[in-house]
Amino acid sequence: MAATTTSSDVKLIGGWPSPFVMRPRIALNIKSVGYEFLQEQLGSKSELLLKSNPVHKKIPVLIHGDRPICESLVIVQYIDAVWASGPSILPSDPYDCATARFWAAYIDDKWFPSLSGIAKAQGEEAQKAALDQVVEGLVLLEDAFVKCSKGKAFFGGDTIGYLDIALGCYLGWIRVTENMNNRKLLDEAKTPNLVTWADKFCSDGSVKDVMPETDKLAEFAKVLMAKFRAPPPN
Amino acid sequence: MAATTTSSDVKLIGGWPSPFVMRPRIALNIKSVGYEFLQEQLGSKSELLLKSNPVHKKIPVLIHGDRPICESLVIVQYIDAVWASGPSILPSDPYDCATARFWAAYIDDKWFPSLSGIAKAQGEEAQKAALDQVVEGLVLLEDAFVKCSKGKAFFGGDTIGYLDIALGCYLGWIRVTENMNNRKLLDEAKTPNLVTWADKFCSDGSVKDVMPETDKLAEFAKVLMAKFRAPPPN
Repeated sequence: MAATTTSSDVKLIGGWPSPFVMRPRIALNIKSVGYEFLQEQLGSKSELLLKSNPVHKKIPVLIHGDRPICESLVIVQYIDAVWASGPSILPSDPYDCATARFWAAYIDDKWFPSLSGIAKAQGEEAQKAALDQVVEGLVLLEDAFVKCSKGKAFFGGDTIGYLDIALGCYLGWIRVTENMNNRKLLDEAKTPNLVTWADKFCSDGSVKDVMPETDKLAEFAKVLMAKFRAPPPN
Repeated sequence: MAATTTSSDVKLIGGWPSPFVMRPRIALNIKSVGYEFLQEQLGSKSELLLKSNPVHKKIPVLIHGDRPICESLVIVQYIDAVWASGPSILPSDPYDCATARFWAAYIDDKWFPSLSGIAKAQGEEAQKAALDQVVEGLVLLEDAFVKCSKGKAFFGGDTIGYLDIALGCYLGWIRVTENMNNRKLLDEAKTPNLVTWADKFCSDGSVKDVMPETDKLAEFAKVLMAKFRAPPPN
């Protein structure tokens, strides 16, 4: 833990099932920064959240001292810069850094919408097409892994970095999606390196305590789907 | 210009009307880095573009040496890191940097879709609602300007920075939209600071030669709209 940091200095507004909340949690663990975890309840937003993120009204929000920082990848970069003496999260080389940022943006802007699109797909054919699209994205990311990791365990090299966090936070939801649809999304045939990477990522000391159990996440997914499929109240 | 940089080292694949292409152009100007500008033609994509940005197949792409860097804001951050001895583009303070990144993401993910939505809005009422939404976003950005600039000329302080580039690149298109709809989007009543900022931004040495003339951009907009409204070829 950084010498000047106590958990009262650092608060994180979040929720355990959110992949976006997992990002700053992993980053804080990498930097050994203690924090108070303020969990939002599904279906309501606390006054503190609304005040801290009035533009998006979304988790996660990091509160450092009395200043809020919003947007998961912005928070991860902030953590890396503030607790600079801990292990680096962003690559130090500008080209590697640009590559990590490029793929992190791809994951959030292109790939994640295809993952969340599976639940919305109506009919067997649409659902298969949505699953195929997710796998296509993962095949691109397999190729990115080979280039970024340069033979090492993580996108970031020997230790977990920015792009590991950006993709790894979705692993719980990938597993839930696999179970619900009875189909592997990460597999030895198409994404062998990502299969190995996923195991190493989930068992890393900075990740294992914040990665939700698949069964627990599946239960939450059912609650979430029931909530959003329920008819609106009169 | 950085001592080791010649224009043969740095190429930018782009097009003069694109706000996204303007971003790296301004950043390269700030750093006094010479570059070769390779303009794509509307409606076709060069082999070099397809090879350099196979994922998105979009401009801008910076080619530094033989390595491509894609995505406009990723490129701006890359330029800032590589030519570090020039004027800084990103704020050095981590909180200011996080704030700039937050608003830049807001501009691209929330505000710009509302700007580009105006042309798609069908009917007078929908068009008014779309214009109102753009103004609402600019009012939020006016507030952000007051907080970020701390009484100085730019979001970045005394000189143009990351958030200036992120928003300023749209000023040409804002003017075209104002003219086409006969309504001010930036005005003295709702966004007085942004009005002053816009003038200073456009007349800055790093910007004035890359900011397209409004009339020329309006002509281009007509060509673009005719193209996308034309029936598909048989």
